[in-house]
Amino acid sequence: MSLLDRIAICHRHDLTRYLPFKVGADRIGFMRPDLAGELKRFPSVFRVAADAVSIAEHLDTFDYRSAAIDSVMRELRQEGFVRGWRDELFTVAAHYGAEPLFDLERAGVPLFGVKAYGVHLNGFVRRDGEIWLWVGRRAANRPIEPGKLDHLVAGGLPSGVKPFDNLIKEAAEEASIPKELARRARPCGALSYRMELDGCLRDDTLFVYDLELPADFTPRNHDGEIADFRLLPLGEIERLLAETSDFKFNVGLVIIDFLIRHGYLSPERPDYSALALALSRRP
Amino acid sequence: MSLLDRIAICHRHDLTRYLPFKVGADRIGFMRPDLAGELKRFPSVFRVAADAVSIAEHLDTFDYRSAAIDSVMRELRQEGFVRGWRDELFTVAAHYGAEPLFDLERAGVPLFGVKAYGVHLNGFVRRDGEIWLWVGRRAANRPIEPGKLDHLVAGGLPSGVKPFDNLIKEAAEEASIPKELARRARPCGALSYRMELDGCLRDDTLFVYDLELPADFTPRNHDGEIADFRLLPLGEIERLLAETSDFKFNVGLVIIDFLIRHGYLSPERPDYSALALALSRRP
Repeated sequence: MSLLDRIAICHRHDLTRYLPFKVGADRIGFMRPDLAGELKRFPSVFRVAADAVSIAEHLDTFDYRSAAIDSVMRELRQEGFVRGWRDELFTVAAHYGAEPLFDLERAGVPLFGVKAYGVHLNGFVRRDGEIWLWVGRRAANRPIEPGKLDHLVAGGLPSGVKPFDNLIKEAAEEASIPKELARRARPCGALSYRMELDGCLRDDTLFVYDLELPADFTPRNHDGEIADFRLLPLGEIERLLAETSDFKFNVGLVIIDFLIRHGYLSPERPDYSALALALSRRP
Repeated sequence: MSLLDRIAICHRHDLTRYLPFKVGADRIGFMRPDLAGELKRFPSVFRVAADAVSIAEHLDTFDYRSAAIDSVMRELRQEGFVRGWRDELFTVAAHYGAEPLFDLERAGVPLFGVKAYGVHLNGFVRRDGEIWLWVGRRAANRPIEPGKLDHLVAGGLPSGVKPFDNLIKEAAEEASIPKELARRARPCGALSYRMELDGCLRDDTLFVYDLELPADFTPRNHDGEIADFRLLPLGEIERLLAETSDFKFNVGLVIIDFLIRHGYLSPERPDYSALALALSRRP
């Protein structure tokens, strides 16, 4: 597998397998047909047509929509249709920065195929002019990609939390990075992908941060989500990405962007232009 | 005008105004119909059909194609159809890193709508933790965008020259940056756009480099392409991009990428995700 293949994995999907999920005229998600089937039982909340699912028009405020959808989600949870309840709300909107439409329990995000956002931190150290990257290994009990390699810090963006505040909070929980140190992290861009995972469409945008760490810093995990950490030189990182599937899928995307931004990859490489341009789909 | 509008300008085009230009089965350009009309007079070099223009199949090597097309280009120049002859060859290929198909005089690149490549250097200085960017003003006699603001160093990629070698050469000619200093420049990515300019389709990919310069460095132009240089703080750069059309079109694209990569813009901005994702079209 090549670095290009690694990126392509994050963009692999077939939209014809999903139903457009709409609020008014705006498509805000790609819904699994089996979820659409379940939602027919809740006509006061969802209008299920053959070619699209919409939220009932009388639910015309953020609070009305959030409460009605939450009630449906809890019933579907009780019936065993919705699994992996997180007790964490994500805000749904047509696009980033647009008017929030409703809050949705995180477990529902992939089922509805709505846009979700996350923060990923490249925590790195310079040794003799070379860059080494801190990498975590996901705990064996994580619902998605257990045991895979991950960023030093990464997390979904819950409702009402700003990206940088979320990064600071996750940095403390996941890697014991003190607030004063975490605040030096610098936003470096956004990457987005649409991919199918476990029969759902994930439509994710990741906000990318870089943080240069002191040579003597050692991360320790607090929340049980990371089993252990290791510090790897970029050459080994590139090898793992190109030759193994050890990294969590979207972490590869963010690290290839890191390798490009820091000049580890260069335009003399024949696939450079393809790599740099493949990283993001258009909004 | 917003930063998003500034990016959108670089992606504005209507492909239906052009004819696909092909070598074998590969589309390699978007040709102006008036050029296709002229090329009908050269049936041993170009096959002009109603829906596409191809290079004659008997021209089956790089050298055959280059020589035959050069001869046509020189005749069209003599007749006044091809203007702004540069005496500089660009290599044409289906995509970056692919087998070179032929060399083409630079003045023909926009007429054939083939892919072209360039290098752009963000030359910057840190003052009290703030980043200032060196900006040049294009000479009044430049064929494209005279008098507009430009990068410290930027140039098209001629045939047979590697991107980094081209950067070093242009850095000396355009800004008197000594080789030892220029070699510290770091590749940071590639940006690509398709836009219509003067009735031609430009299908360009820019290789982006950053170079932190010493505080006492002062650029001087050698080749007459830049009228003068100025050092501006990022706040002023952002204002010029958002409120004026002082910058050359594609320089805006590269500088917005710089503002994002260096954390001058951050995800708390509602249009951040749109900006970061709009920068490049897919390859």
